[in-house]
Amino acid sequence: MKERSPVCVYEWRYGSQEMRQVFSRDNMVETYKRVELALLESLVELGVAPPKALDEAKKAASKLSAIQVYDEEKKRGHDIASLVFLMGRLGGEEAARWIHFGATSNDVIDTAWALVIRDALSIVKKRLRLLIEKLVVLAEKHRYTVMPGRTHGQHATPITLGFKVANYVYELARSYERICDAEKRILRVKLGGATGTMASWNGYGLELRKAFASKLGLEPHIISTQVAPRDGFAELAAVLAILASTLDRFAVEIRELARPEIHELWEERGSAIGSSAMPQKANPVTAERISGLARIARSLVHVFLENMVLWHERDLTNSSSERVAIPHLFLTIDQILIDANNLVDRLRVDRDKMKRNLYLTMATATTEALMNLLIQRARLSREEAYSLARKAAQKALQDQKPLWIAASELPEIRKHLEDVDLEEVLRPENYIGEAPRLVSEATSYARAVLKEC
Amino acid sequence: MKERSPVCVYEWRYGSQEMRQVFSRDNMVETYKRVELALLESLVELGVAPPKALDEAKKAASKLSAIQVYDEEKKRGHDIASLVFLMGRLGGEEAARWIHFGATSNDVIDTAWALVIRDALSIVKKRLRLLIEKLVVLAEKHRYTVMPGRTHGQHATPITLGFKVANYVYELARSYERICDAEKRILRVKLGGATGTMASWNGYGLELRKAFASKLGLEPHIISTQVAPRDGFAELAAVLAILASTLDRFAVEIRELARPEIHELWEERGSAIGSSAMPQKANPVTAERISGLARIARSLVHVFLENMVLWHERDLTNSSSERVAIPHLFLTIDQILIDANNLVDRLRVDRDKMKRNLYLTMATATTEALMNLLIQRARLSREEAYSLARKAAQKALQDQKPLWIAASELPEIRKHLEDVDLEEVLRPENYIGEAPRLVSEATSYARAVLKEC
Amino acid sequence: MKERSPVCVYEWRYGSQEMRQVFSRDNMVETYKRVELALLESLVELGVAPPKALDEAKKAASKLSAIQVYDEEKKRGHDIASLVFLMGRLGGEEAARWIHFGATSNDVIDTAWALVIRDALSIVKKRLRLLIEKLVVLAEKHRYTVMPGRTHGQHATPITLGFKVANYVYELARSYERICDAEKRILRVKLGGATGTMASWNGYGLELRKAFASKLGLEPHIISTQVAPRDGFAELAAVLAILASTLDRFAVEIRELARPEIHELWEERGSAIGSSAMPQKANPVTAERISGLARIARSLVHVFLENMVLWHERDLTNSSSERVAIPHLFLTIDQILIDANNLVDRLRVDRDKMKRNLYLTMATATTEALMNLLIQRARLSREEAYSLARKAAQKALQDQKPLWIAASELPEIRKHLEDVDLEEVLRPENYIGEAPRLVSEATSYARAVLKEC
Amino acid sequence: MKERSPVCVYEWRYGSQEMRQVFSRDNMVETYKRVELALLESLVELGVAPPKALDEAKKAASKLSAIQVYDEEKKRGHDIASLVFLMGRLGGEEAARWIHFGATSNDVIDTAWALVIRDALSIVKKRLRLLIEKLVVLAEKHRYTVMPGRTHGQHATPITLGFKVANYVYELARSYERICDAEKRILRVKLGGATGTMASWNGYGLELRKAFASKLGLEPHIISTQVAPRDGFAELAAVLAILASTLDRFAVEIRELARPEIHELWEERGSAIGSSAMPQKANPVTAERISGLARIARSLVHVFLENMVLWHERDLTNSSSERVAIPHLFLTIDQILIDANNLVDRLRVDRDKMKRNLYLTMATATTEALMNLLIQRARLSREEAYSLARKAAQKALQDQKPLWIAASELPEIRKHLEDVDLEEVLRPENYIGEAPRLVSEATSYARAVLKEC
Repeated sequence: MKERSPVCVYEWRYGSQEMRQVFSRDNMVETYKRVELALLESLVELGVAPPKALDEAKKAASKLSAIQVYDEEKKRGHDIASLVFLMGRLGGEEAARWIHFGATSNDVIDTAWALVIRDALSIVKKRLRLLIEKLVVLAEKHRYTVMPGRTHGQHATPITLGFKVANYVYELARSYERICDAEKRILRVKLGGATGTMASWNGYGLELRKAFASKLGLEPHIISTQVAPRDGFAELAAVLAILASTLDRFAVEIRELARPEIHELWEERGSAIGSSAMPQKANPVTAERISGLARIARSLVHVFLENMVLWHERDLTNSSSERVAIPHLFLTIDQILIDANNLVDRLRVDRDKMKRNLYLTMATATTEALMNLLIQRARLSREEAYSLARKAAQKALQDQKPLWIAASELPEIRKHLEDVDLEEVLRPENYIGEAPRLVSEATSYARAVLKEC
Repeated sequence: MKERSPVCVYEWRYGSQEMRQVFSRDNMVETYKRVELALLESLVELGVAPPKALDEAKKAASKLSAIQVYDEEKKRGHDIASLVFLMGRLGGEEAARWIHFGATSNDVIDTAWALVIRDALSIVKKRLRLLIEKLVVLAEKHRYTVMPGRTHGQHATPITLGFKVANYVYELARSYERICDAEKRILRVKLGGATGTMASWNGYGLELRKAFASKLGLEPHIISTQVAPRDGFAELAAVLAILASTLDRFAVEIRELARPEIHELWEERGSAIGSSAMPQKANPVTAERISGLARIARSLVHVFLENMVLWHERDLTNSSSERVAIPHLFLTIDQILIDANNLVDRLRVDRDKMKRNLYLTMATATTEALMNLLIQRARLSREEAYSLARKAAQKALQDQKPLWIAASELPEIRKHLEDVDLEEVLRPENYIGEAPRLVSEATSYARAVLKEC
Repeated sequence: MKERSPVCVYEWRYGSQEMRQVFSRDNMVETYKRVELALLESLVELGVAPPKALDEAKKAASKLSAIQVYDEEKKRGHDIASLVFLMGRLGGEEAARWIHFGATSNDVIDTAWALVIRDALSIVKKRLRLLIEKLVVLAEKHRYTVMPGRTHGQHATPITLGFKVANYVYELARSYERICDAEKRILRVKLGGATGTMASWNGYGLELRKAFASKLGLEPHIISTQVAPRDGFAELAAVLAILASTLDRFAVEIRELARPEIHELWEERGSAIGSSAMPQKANPVTAERISGLARIARSLVHVFLENMVLWHERDLTNSSSERVAIPHLFLTIDQILIDANNLVDRLRVDRDKMKRNLYLTMATATTEALMNLLIQRARLSREEAYSLARKAAQKALQDQKPLWIAASELPEIRKHLEDVDLEEVLRPENYIGEAPRLVSEATSYARAVLKEC
Repeated sequence: MKERSPVCVYEWRYGSQEMRQVFSRDNMVETYKRVELALLESLVELGVAPPKALDEAKKAASKLSAIQVYDEEKKRGHDIASLVFLMGRLGGEEAARWIHFGATSNDVIDTAWALVIRDALSIVKKRLRLLIEKLVVLAEKHRYTVMPGRTHGQHATPITLGFKVANYVYELARSYERICDAEKRILRVKLGGATGTMASWNGYGLELRKAFASKLGLEPHIISTQVAPRDGFAELAAVLAILASTLDRFAVEIRELARPEIHELWEERGSAIGSSAMPQKANPVTAERISGLARIARSLVHVFLENMVLWHERDLTNSSSERVAIPHLFLTIDQILIDANNLVDRLRVDRDKMKRNLYLTMATATTEALMNLLIQRARLSREEAYSLARKAAQKALQDQKPLWIAASELPEIRKHLEDVDLEEVLRPENYIGEAPRLVSEATSYARAVLKEC
């Protein structure tokens, strides 16, 4: 295969070299060999195959390259059969007898998937852990940095930046926890032979499986057809698509707050060109890429859900789609996590703009506090209090005065609250409730999750 | 609202009355009221609101109907605000002050979702548990009932019916376990006020949340924006779509094995009409409905993934889609589980047909055993053994003789295996490996899962 | 079936009564009867059945209600068979012989789908046409209303509001055209009998189909299995999901521009309550509902794609999912279109805010014009011009001066452009290019599409 | 970039070299250059830029490689800006001024997409046309080859193989037609500058666009934002996913009919290895790959639907996902079409097995004909006729006698039909209705479609 201009952007543009390596054709073949050797070693341990077979097979494995396997596949139309054949030929007589003894291709393939997915998930978890840790720092740093809360895109009661970030900390910690929960169903070796009955290993199949699994550091699937159950792959895709979607939400957060009219947060871009036509632009392209790639992650879930519906002891329809979708899924998530980390590193905060935006709507964001006062102090019904508070807010917006002044100018309010320092109560900076304590709640939760798994 | 011809089949055709009740408009409003009362009771306990408010509110709640709420909504354009207003008016002065104090609509809505989803999941788990238990019985009963294994739709090494069923037992137990894992992230109350900061409850927000959650028997979300994090809903949808897809696989199994050419298993249909045009048909309509509805379940996952990407402290886009998709998701799963239970009850097994099908391909399904013999006894390489065994299989198919006879007629095989009772080794009935033990492994696993959660 | 609290929001909350009527159980049964009568009338015309059969069947049809059919279905497990039986019993001897003669259920069901989908599409097209017409008016009215263009959420070269709207006019006209293109593949009757071979009508099947189709005002499918090909349904779902997504984009436009920091456009909300906790809020809830429901529309596409993969001459898996998904799809689109029309009616425009926002970024949005000047007048390379223009833009932002002043203060720019009235060239209001002409291009295109189909 | 072990199977395993070439990084850059030159040539024609600029740019284009562009991008963070810069530098002074004059990156990118998609669609259409033509031949050849019809996986009234194939001919011709319909919305150049207003080309923008489009042999989008409207891409994905799903249905057809119990059709596999464990297997792996890859095609639709919802005059979120999804979509379809053609070439038919299967269910597939006879000759009601016919079918199955014998042994049937040659009427071979004529209908339709577009 000669050098060719790549057609897939995951070859060069998206995803890290580290993740690419995991799913490279070479590493897949290395992993197949590793699995074959683990099986053979287990057969030797149980006295089924002679030790010489293992020695020969190891020697063969060290010589055999992926290119050879796929050249052989052109003849045989079957990649694992080609690998097995070549390991026998390169190894010697005993290897040629005992390699793959009793196994089916998917004992190798599905176990190899478990192994490379373990490696890939460990990259994902590493990046996610780092991201959570950075966000914990950010949340704690900005525990008291007041900014507008926003619901429906409209100003709502104020929050702190630390509180905003702490919500992402919580959601990302949930994702981390969810990955850990899923691993116990996903990261399992599969060994069962052609239809899962271990027929070739009658009498010692379960022992063999135990030895095999233990060599590879994983638990085995309790039972399987020819293939490991595909619910695990669907769960994997779902769990990663959920993570991608949380980061999409984070990216949208940044993209929105970086608008020139808002400009509370943005990603520093250094000297990069903003636009080929508009030199002045500083576009949130990292965040936009996260949002774009999250769509790929979401779309792949369906592939794995459909793949679950295999016929009887399996059909082959999962094979081609997994060859495509598993690497793509992980490279997508990888790029998203790299971008998210990068984004947090380059995040800039303008506290002044936050404060100015708070007052853009004349502190009407604290109208709720006024309503509560009227309920508590003036003993009004919620309905009456709501009405009055709304009236004050409308007056504030119309007259372009802070809410506390507008409120104090309404006699029907003033009469109830004469002894209250309205400015004290209604200044947005003072109305952040338990936000700082909730930051601690969220970061503690995250730390516990990261510690446990 | 007068009686109208329904437009949605979940109103009458699919899903149980029990599940319908959970998501009925009436029960949603009942649950909203229950949440409002739990909040008010907590406020009273903390000394914020007077006990009288709670008494009044309870009285109001007992009088207030869903229809009144939605009539009021027509005026107000907001359902929770309407409910709050009406509970105040029907209750009395103190209720009218303290109902919903400090809360935002989604404190009520998201907590209500958690409560009804708890009920709905308990129906799901009940039906799933029952189904697993039935399949455990079936698996154990047919531990030794030999039938063709099938991969790619082609005959593969034999299995037992019990082994086939045990694979479903395992996969369904994994689904059960996955639901339990997900519950800890999904079934949480949300209490935080307008943007999640608990601003109205400054100084006692966390205590209030604790009391509130405990009254409703759930843990609270550690932190939230205006809404509970939507990753939980996406996980819920994914987990249920995975369950639906395992049952889709089961339904396809039955539909395939019920073909007249195969006819090893089928659903007994009693006197139902098979077809309006073809009186002779006995169609697997229950299984087909499972497969059809599984598509609805799968498609809904995407709604919840997109819903995660809310702006800032929330936007409203999740609201309409959840009103549609949550009830539909559960009614879909409900019908699928009802159908699956029903299908297992009415499943008929033809052991003779299984045996006859085993021999349809001249016992070539055990060619692997022949290959293994040649490796073990004749010390052939896998490549040579594979070749010879294949030759025997081809001969068997061509001459329409059982494999053991075809093999013994090939001198190059016979010379190696003269002392072997080929019939004994190659009879499909004898080549089921550890299938019976694996049945026990799977059922033990399932029992442990059902016991634990 | 007694009055029950609804579980599906399409029964009462989303979608018009007009659309609900089309897919109501009653209308479905009315349509089945209409199809049966069209078939019988065709059989009579061809001399196969006696005229009396038709008279009797018409009489029966007029008496038979949906409730009777579905009560009978409980016994028979088959709705069309129940309808056919009841039409015979209520009609008389000849009806009881000739009703449904030679047909299969899906001759009736799929033809009925075509008929109700025709009606439903005509509601969709009516609402879409109205929407396009309103947007044409809006585009023309605001042909010259200058506002910031925005890419990446950042200010880009200015546009006019009319130009912005004209893009939606174009995209919606494309949707209209796409629906018309799809109709010729979707709106076709299906008549072929049990497996599509017309075996019962041997010798006159094609003539019968022609008569039948013509009575119902549609073309027939050229050939079919037991069912009409499901590619048409998938196309329908795709076409409507595309429409929904364009309107989602429109809704996002409004939601974004209604932010308090931007506030160029918003939906007037009258006296509706903004929020249960925050009286001051004026939330873009109509637009948010469009975005939320668009997710439902998008998700349903997958159902119809999976439904295409039916076994052989059909399996039943499409049946349950279509009963759910077809009405839901249309009710979703219906509500989206109602909301979109409503949104346009209530759209408010603040030209002053648009102008102020234009200057928020110091007219740097026209930096491109400066670059072009430097290329054209100063004969600089693009690279040099880009660099200089960017410098000017940065200066403008730093000094908070309009770009034309910042530019003129840079000697390296001024020296090239001394004779140019920079303010004239760089004022955003003057830099709208062909926007007004493009409005005309788009509206002409839309008018032509609306005229043609 | 050194040779690396590929991570994406589309680089080497799936898709043709021909299709890979279209979306290779090299060809993308070639196409960008071609678009830049077309723009510059148009500027020269309109007298805006000097002819020398074009000469220089052409020279530059001939020297510039993709690798250079992407190396430059590492510095600039923008691929089109890098290309423009390098074309200027390699070209000369005038090129450096006029290249890309007035344009935005997406004038180049979206027009390039249109051009490569045109090429890719022409490969798709070529392969699809070939496939349809082969199936037309197959349909006509087997116009009279009787086989069981199957609904619900159960035997239904007989069909002919030609009729079965003709249904695919019809469905695939509809796909071909749908692609042609969609092309007029998809294959359009985009030229509008930064926000689509043509501000840099004020006064001659529309003329420039016309010249530009005509050089590239396409119509322009009537209006656009910074980017071409994304509805076209969503339609493209939908149209191709529909095609993939029809071929998935075809693949399932073959996979099912190749089961050993049915074995009416199968794919000849030559000497390929069936299985690593089971030498005797002849697995339908080509058909299975079609089904597997169709899932990838279906899943990608959602990416493009989400991509439609861009902010204002565009955001960048479509960019990354399109770089991934457009090539993957086409390589997926490409492999599916190659496989489908291949499958048809290697399709083997066993007419005897078809006939034997017809009688497996004792000719009860023609029970409908018996019912019709009873209605027509015996003047029974459908209900009575249905009952009697069903009784005969049950007797046939129970006694294992052909239906005509079973029927004639029932006195209540015989009395009505004494003068009828039941065997003549009820032999499945005689009950194929208009199947042969419908083959002609379908092939004529397909020929007309292929001729027209």
